[in-house]
Amino acid sequence: MFDEAQSDPTLSKDAYQTLEARLRVALLKAQYSRLERADRALLVVVAGIDGAGKGAAINLLNEWMDPRHIKTMAFGPPEADELERPPMWRYWNALPAKGRTGIVFGSWYVPLLREAARKKPRQRRIEAHAEAIRRFEAVLAAEGVQIVKLWYHLSAQAQADRTRRLLSSPETAWQVTPADRKVQKKYHRLCDAGRVAISLTDDAHAPWTIIPSADERLRAVRGSEAVLAALRRRSAPRVAAWLAGPPPKPARPALRLDQIDYRARLDKDNYESALGLLQGRLAEAARSDAFRQRSLVLVFEGQDAAGKGGTIRRVTHALDARQYDINPISVPAPYELARPYLWRFWRRLPRLGRIAIFDRSWYGRVLVERVEGLARPAEWRRAYAEINDFEHQLTSHGIIVLKFWLALTPDVQLERFRQRQQSPFKHFKITDDDWRNRKKWREYAAATNAMLAHTDSAPAPWHVVPSNDKRYARVQVLRHIVDTLENSL
Amino acid sequence: MFDEAQSDPTLSKDAYQTLEARLRVALLKAQYSRLERADRALLVVVAGIDGAGKGAAINLLNEWMDPRHIKTMAFGPPEADELERPPMWRYWNALPAKGRTGIVFGSWYVPLLREAARKKPRQRRIEAHAEAIRRFEAVLAAEGVQIVKLWYHLSAQAQADRTRRLLSSPETAWQVTPADRKVQKKYHRLCDAGRVAISLTDDAHAPWTIIPSADERLRAVRGSEAVLAALRRRSAPRVAAWLAGPPPKPARPALRLDQIDYRARLDKDNYESALGLLQGRLAEAARSDAFRQRSLVLVFEGQDAAGKGGTIRRVTHALDARQYDINPISVPAPYELARPYLWRFWRRLPRLGRIAIFDRSWYGRVLVERVEGLARPAEWRRAYAEINDFEHQLTSHGIIVLKFWLALTPDVQLERFRQRQQSPFKHFKITDDDWRNRKKWREYAAATNAMLAHTDSAPAPWHVVPSNDKRYARVQVLRHIVDTLENSL
Repeated sequence: MFDEAQSDPTLSKDAYQTLEARLRVALLKAQYSRLERADRALLVVVAGIDGAGKGAAINLLNEWMDPRHIKTMAFGPPEADELERPPMWRYWNALPAKGRTGIVFGSWYVPLLREAARKKPRQRRIEAHAEAIRRFEAVLAAEGVQIVKLWYHLSAQAQADRTRRLLSSPETAWQVTPADRKVQKKYHRLCDAGRVAISLTDDAHAPWTIIPSADERLRAVRGSEAVLAALRRRSAPRVAAWLAGPPPKPARPALRLDQIDYRARLDKDNYESALGLLQGRLAEAARSDAFRQRSLVLVFEGQDAAGKGGTIRRVTHALDARQYDINPISVPAPYELARPYLWRFWRRLPRLGRIAIFDRSWYGRVLVERVEGLARPAEWRRAYAEINDFEHQLTSHGIIVLKFWLALTPDVQLERFRQRQQSPFKHFKITDDDWRNRKKWREYAAATNAMLAHTDSAPAPWHVVPSNDKRYARVQVLRHIVDTLENSL
Repeated sequence: MFDEAQSDPTLSKDAYQTLEARLRVALLKAQYSRLERADRALLVVVAGIDGAGKGAAINLLNEWMDPRHIKTMAFGPPEADELERPPMWRYWNALPAKGRTGIVFGSWYVPLLREAARKKPRQRRIEAHAEAIRRFEAVLAAEGVQIVKLWYHLSAQAQADRTRRLLSSPETAWQVTPADRKVQKKYHRLCDAGRVAISLTDDAHAPWTIIPSADERLRAVRGSEAVLAALRRRSAPRVAAWLAGPPPKPARPALRLDQIDYRARLDKDNYESALGLLQGRLAEAARSDAFRQRSLVLVFEGQDAAGKGGTIRRVTHALDARQYDINPISVPAPYELARPYLWRFWRRLPRLGRIAIFDRSWYGRVLVERVEGLARPAEWRRAYAEINDFEHQLTSHGIIVLKFWLALTPDVQLERFRQRQQSPFKHFKITDDDWRNRKKWREYAAATNAMLAHTDSAPAPWHVVPSNDKRYARVQVLRHIVDTLENSL
């Protein structure tokens, strides 16, 4: 795949000058038209052989295009706060809005390339890195982020010549970094690593382009042409099959709303005693040294008036206020809609020793957005796989994930709606939406059952909690949290 | 000031129930009307004696109001990424948007209270903490953030009684934290610290209210009443005098645009040699171990077409792409307009070892916003003091701040405008705004001279660089950066 680049082709000055003028005009035009449509973001991933001039190439793109609408993102070794979240967190955080362009340097390819460039690469790790990359890129591509990947390449001879030339003058010698000198010795291993990485991740929705880089002029032209072609591509790509494929097998027989005992109750005395004792155990677990190295994500879903808010307050009552964040999730803001669906949840992942509580969550995609037609069928159908992948990234990073569905029956909901409406300080809790949703009880139940069937997994289990009796529900939720924490720590 | 609270007053159950219903309705109404107006944010600062039930009080506010529009922010000891920025950074970052309410726990009072509660408080540190707080609150108050501060108080006897009562049952014993047991011994020192902190920071625009907290019912009522009164206050307060006061004395005779030599030039050979050598020195300084413990903020301002972009590229050419961020500053987005003016700049402060480059900056307030009437006179007039305070916080935290004004004459600007318009790939750089600004050359020059006079300081100096010759300007800028870095490291 590196044949052409390995031969270090060049471009004459005259040919370059004609091309430069044409390319710059075309790039600007394509960039503005993209901004105006604002239908997709563009991520340009920059990788390649050291000394091939990636930095200069990025500078050039910023000079030839309108740099106000380009975000150059260069990632070094992860910082402490980044290490506390899954590896893709930093990249999710940095996603540009639709219409805009991001240039990524030090991307999600670094761990794969580093592994593949080892003296003895470990095949299973390579596979795992590549799989994580493919899933990440597939989610982005399906969600309106176009990805192009540029590999800047030159021959070992050209690399050595460049270093020698730069070192010959004090005005340019500083351009050869200490790192450059080291990697030169590893040229062939880096080439091999590039071949491996490219062959494992060259998907139609996130293609690689090799940029011959020995000659500055040809490098400039080829890099710009690749970006121009990407900017001009108007149709979104079809994304790899895994997203549409079958969901992972649930860890147990499918949960269903109609298979729980809605009569479960708890009297006041038993409730208060059980609550106090469970809160005590929760407080102890959350204050423990072991928890400082873990984090916890709690998801609360359920029918309207099922008691999510009151249950959450019973949980947080046992916690230090510095330990948790409550994230009430409703309609996304415009800047959230300009990014992939999961972006706003990625941003709220907890640090070590912290608890993120979601009052409604990413499951909105397969519930309200599905039933109300706010998401297209293709969007909510692939969301099961996206969500499973997201939660898998959390749990394999050591984050404890617990999901609660507070379930109540229509008659009890009606009673609570009426109570809310009559109370002068509770009627803010009831809106026309609630009554409208109630009319679609069956559609919501079907969506919920499908959600439970597709997203219940052993590492991130659903707990369907009968909530016709609030006391019973609160104690059940606390019990699940406490048991899980005590087992995990 | 604690007399009433020290006597541990109580409220009867009957009186409470009447008040509760009335307060909850009023709180919700006030909260919604505030949200609708969206003219000011509200920050509720929670502090007080340990064991006074601050956590329960926050829970209660979240229960009585609509918690979806309240952000509870509890701060513990600063994390690594927070320590890399000035102390107020974490609080700036967390500011709620206009219309919304934030409850702050572990606020900017912690260092002051901790100092004042020492066995031998150091008076100068107390003064310095209080001064930082007053400035912070004054800036927020002037910029649309209303602040109320609640001090939850009870007597030593009530504190001890509460602990004993809680410890008597396993259902409640966990509510007494290990920290609670420690602080009980320090009751009197905490009271004294509270007195000191309150007396030093009880401003009309950010008043303290003492909440008697021995009785849960009275605590709930008084806390809610204080928040209610704040929510209902429609008029913005007059803010302390320092903001309107005279600016700090400049470090040297006032800089002026008409006092520099616009004929300064550099020929191509000298330019290329000087540029290469300076870039080499910059690369070395930025790669040095010493720089890993510092950070650098570069501000670029200047007339349109003065060459900011090209100069910035010459600087970044010498840097590792992972080291710097370029922040192009233009019209603020709606979510930025919903916060104090400086919010969007605080968010972009660099970590250690990093460089934040601002292509235009917070000086927009006293330049384009002043001249074009986008800021009210009161806003841009107080901005000098706000900016000086902001930069003072940066430099006293060890951040190196350098500010460049690239200055050119009207004739050269006209020439560059025409060149841009004729070039097929540069005319995006010239807009109607540029021509309009050009007509106001004198107003902009006056605003610039005022800015230089008011904000030039030894720790964060302005460099006015003649830029009729781009080569000369680039070399000058690099030279200032390199000299400053080499001297500071």
